[in-house]
Amino acid sequence: MNLWFVENHSPNVQFSMRVIEHLYTGKSEFQKIDVFQTAEFGRVLTLDGYVMVTEKDEFIYHDMITHVPMATNPGIKKVLVIGAGDGGTIRELTKYDSIEHIDMVEIDEMVVDVCREFLPQTASKLDDPRVHLHFEDGLKFVRSRNDEYDLIIVDSTDPFGPGEGLFTREFYGNCYKALNDEGILVNQHESPFYEEDALGMQRAHKRIIGFFPVCEVYQLHIPTYPSGHWLFGFASKKYDPIKDLDADAWNQLGLQTKYYNTDIHVGSFALPNYVKEQLKDVE
Amino acid sequence: MNLWFVENHSPNVQFSMRVIEHLYTGKSEFQKIDVFQTAEFGRVLTLDGYVMVTEKDEFIYHDMITHVPMATNPGIKKVLVIGAGDGGTIRELTKYDSIEHIDMVEIDEMVVDVCREFLPQTASKLDDPRVHLHFEDGLKFVRSRNDEYDLIIVDSTDPFGPGEGLFTREFYGNCYKALNDEGILVNQHESPFYEEDALGMQRAHKRIIGFFPVCEVYQLHIPTYPSGHWLFGFASKKYDPIKDLDADAWNQLGLQTKYYNTDIHVGSFALPNYVKEQLKDVE
Repeated sequence: MNLWFVENHSPNVQFSMRVIEHLYTGKSEFQKIDVFQTAEFGRVLTLDGYVMVTEKDEFIYHDMITHVPMATNPGIKKVLVIGAGDGGTIRELTKYDSIEHIDMVEIDEMVVDVCREFLPQTASKLDDPRVHLHFEDGLKFVRSRNDEYDLIIVDSTDPFGPGEGLFTREFYGNCYKALNDEGILVNQHESPFYEEDALGMQRAHKRIIGFFPVCEVYQLHIPTYPSGHWLFGFASKKYDPIKDLDADAWNQLGLQTKYYNTDIHVGSFALPNYVKEQLKDVE
Repeated sequence: MNLWFVENHSPNVQFSMRVIEHLYTGKSEFQKIDVFQTAEFGRVLTLDGYVMVTEKDEFIYHDMITHVPMATNPGIKKVLVIGAGDGGTIRELTKYDSIEHIDMVEIDEMVVDVCREFLPQTASKLDDPRVHLHFEDGLKFVRSRNDEYDLIIVDSTDPFGPGEGLFTREFYGNCYKALNDEGILVNQHESPFYEEDALGMQRAHKRIIGFFPVCEVYQLHIPTYPSGHWLFGFASKKYDPIKDLDADAWNQLGLQTKYYNTDIHVGSFALPNYVKEQLKDVE
């Protein structure tokens, strides 16, 4: 059988993976959920037909969304994670003994159930006793939180469908309020390369800089996302991701990572000129 | 008409671009040459069915292959470019008034003819009076050169087909000999992500470290190349690409670049752990 999963990376670009087996298909209240066994990427989770995680390259996304803020402020104890139903961000966070409490807010419980069954590689630490799962809308959850978290990670889908609210001005304002005075916000920030992604990225940046005194963007290589060139946002009330990085302290923790290291932490904030201009355009 | 150009990025991964018009097809003594007008990437040159350059993202490749060595040693005057038939590397080099002489050795004259006609965006500076075109095998050309060049740029195709000789031990040894005591070698170094590319990358690295005291690898985002995560090699007899970078001097030149800047110069040498391990495995 010659079966391929095809994703449109732009209206005129397609990315296709050979499928060995379509392991799961289902429809939740919010979205269509599928899991494929692929020849190149191992198991792949898609939501509404878009690749969320693959076993082969998920380490890149999850390393960079967690270790960059954790190495910037080793004092982080209480974390809010929004989205992240596959569990990969939680897996990385639970490597830190210093973290005491993690609230994970995922709108779609069925995503977590499916990942527990089909993606143990990412979902394995969801039962850590420090992790508190909340199956509700992240947008609503943060409204009632004040001065509470050291770190918020917005591990969202794209700015359309169920993830749309997590790219709004109201949401970022509530994140600011939910963070304490040392708080850091890291978010999935889309890509600079294809036009539609770049517009989403610029919109998110414009909204975040309205609230946080420190607003930086860093880049990583995610081969299964459109263009492979992806961005995360780093915003904070106090910490600078370069100046406040204590590389020695992080290295002394002895954590095993396949992508992240303290050199690439610094290097990832050096952006191409065209991306710097896209960001400046909205400031 | 629903026409797509499809490239296998691995045996189980395909990347496809919508084609508006197939502008040119021909067969030289060495390879099949095609030019497509695409909806997303503008004009695209392919050799034997592999994407070489696209108008939309060629700036990334050409910025990073030229400005990294040029900013490391602003005293570079004589340059040898091997491959590079599309002319993009030459276009970037000719921005430097300090360069006095460029030998460009391209095995396939037909590639240059086709690019002059269909890709003026990259081929526009091939007639610069400092550029001397040699249509012959780069492998043979360097054999007879001694202590002559400040910089050699190997802007080759992949390590199979006509470009195969440009990944051999003999070739790198001759490059060493053709460079003067301050010489720098920069080469297209393949990708770490898909298995076959990674093996080519490790093989090239193993051969280069046999000759040069300084051997580094740096990375860039090329959306139309397999995985989007690409590497270039930086080898030299003397210069260190980070310690010897004079950022102020380069910035004072006032060159316009869309990807390169002196921060990303430094940042691009910070590699993910898994790539560092691939490189260490061969040392």
